[in-house]
Amino acid sequence: MPPVSEPSFSVEAYLRAVAARVEAPLRRAVERRARTAPPRLAEAVGYALLGGGKRLRPALVLATAEALGGDTSDGSPAMRFAAALEMIHTYSLVHDDLPCMDDDDLRRGRPTVHKAFDEATAVLVGDALQTMAFELLLERPDARTAEMARLLAENATLMVEGQARDLEAETRRLSAEETLVLMRSKTGALIAAAVAGGAVAATGSDQGLYPVGLGLGLAFQIADDLLDLTASAEDLGKRVKKDATLGKATLPALLGPEEARRRAEGYRDEALAALAPHGAGAEPLRALARYVVARRK
Amino acid sequence: MPPVSEPSFSVEAYLRAVAARVEAPLRRAVERRARTAPPRLAEAVGYALLGGGKRLRPALVLATAEALGGDTSDGSPAMRFAAALEMIHTYSLVHDDLPCMDDDDLRRGRPTVHKAFDEATAVLVGDALQTMAFELLLERPDARTAEMARLLAENATLMVEGQARDLEAETRRLSAEETLVLMRSKTGALIAAAVAGGAVAATGSDQGLYPVGLGLGLAFQIADDLLDLTASAEDLGKRVKKDATLGKATLPALLGPEEARRRAEGYRDEALAALAPHGAGAEPLRALARYVVARRK
Repeated sequence: MPPVSEPSFSVEAYLRAVAARVEAPLRRAVERRARTAPPRLAEAVGYALLGGGKRLRPALVLATAEALGGDTSDGSPAMRFAAALEMIHTYSLVHDDLPCMDDDDLRRGRPTVHKAFDEATAVLVGDALQTMAFELLLERPDARTAEMARLLAENATLMVEGQARDLEAETRRLSAEETLVLMRSKTGALIAAAVAGGAVAATGSDQGLYPVGLGLGLAFQIADDLLDLTASAEDLGKRVKKDATLGKATLPALLGPEEARRRAEGYRDEALAALAPHGAGAEPLRALARYVVARRK
Repeated sequence: MPPVSEPSFSVEAYLRAVAARVEAPLRRAVERRARTAPPRLAEAVGYALLGGGKRLRPALVLATAEALGGDTSDGSPAMRFAAALEMIHTYSLVHDDLPCMDDDDLRRGRPTVHKAFDEATAVLVGDALQTMAFELLLERPDARTAEMARLLAENATLMVEGQARDLEAETRRLSAEETLVLMRSKTGALIAAAVAGGAVAATGSDQGLYPVGLGLGLAFQIADDLLDLTASAEDLGKRVKKDATLGKATLPALLGPEEARRRAEGYRDEALAALAPHGAGAEPLRALARYVVARRK
């Protein structure tokens, strides 16, 4: 008997397809901005938003909506949420890279916005992206997109709390428990919002999937911290080993890489167990759950 | 015959009453933040948001809703919009005061957030306030609050474009026409959103009042620029004559104070004419329209 084969589904191909699909609403939003904004600001918004990235959060939105039989075509609430979430994620990177924050020069393999433009422009790009996200999501405002906007706002605020905890971690050593609280808010909240938002787009309810997304967020962050220990800047397109340099709290640093990896795999397996009843339509979402731990960049 | 008396309505008393009423939802939002946020961030959010201010934008929201017979009680869509708009306005002040922006040390008579705390905290306070605004507005999400959130997002993005134009004005001299475009986006958009949002809260439609709000925003900005030329820092609770120092574009600087004042009065009179059919219920709104030009601080 041949061995049970791995599913033939390619998560890399899925991510590339999502990146191509989400580009359309993002590009339209940038073009609309360019009609009214001063050219330098419009250019900087486009530089930040259309500069690549894995588009993992949009992929989680669309995979969850698809798992529940939802429409993910261009202009659908799910696709608008996917693009809005990527705008919120992008704003957080632009502000996080600022000199008064993490002071990073490199992002997605290119100079950060305040390096390519200037600091004031980077502040304004982040600010503009925040409300552009809600404009896009609420293009056709109704009760369902209102609930999705509430979910987006709530988790974006939690993310800011996580950023504040991250700054705090530079001044004193956090415990493993405090580090988990940090990870839940800084990374977990938006990834949980991706899964929950995809579910609301498809069905009007989050279907109890928020904790699944939160687990994937924690698994993603641990994998990210493990990569930061081992990868090169060329691999990641951003400065590496900066967490250790800044004395930032990460689970690999606190528990050792072996135990941290075990935890990440535990979160992934809990998510996969919760998704097991969802049938073949949830295979892209399950593949993404495996990918967040297994990825090499 | 005695002279026709001025209406006995006191706009100062109305503003004080609005400030007291809007304090409740703002304070609740700060307290909710304090339950999950790191203490320093929660404290800084409270410092920025509960630190006074005229609360002119909330007053315009509530006065417009009242003029159209809408509910403005605590928890109503109008009151939630009033508080959300004040959060957006406050975030813009916190970010605008940053060293890389206007670099101001004094705001509402107290040290600015980055002076009282630090620069990273000020960035995060502004970011948190942006999404806290949408959380509050969408506390009970439905189609009407979705439309109000769309309106808020659209005009908050326009405001950021105005900030970018303001920075541009430090590098080259703007024409009077470009200065009007700057004023429309930087100040006009949020004040127009106040009036339009109050109308949507009350009736589900902006009742064509957006341009009335925009005119009031322009009148307000001209009056502000005139005060900047004449008042003391103690009067205004912020640095004065900074516009001239920074070479910023203002109508008083471009057209002279006399002509600028005439323009402000013209915008006010257009707004009053548009509001004339709205009867006695619109008297607070008309009083606010007179106030934005006549105010002394």
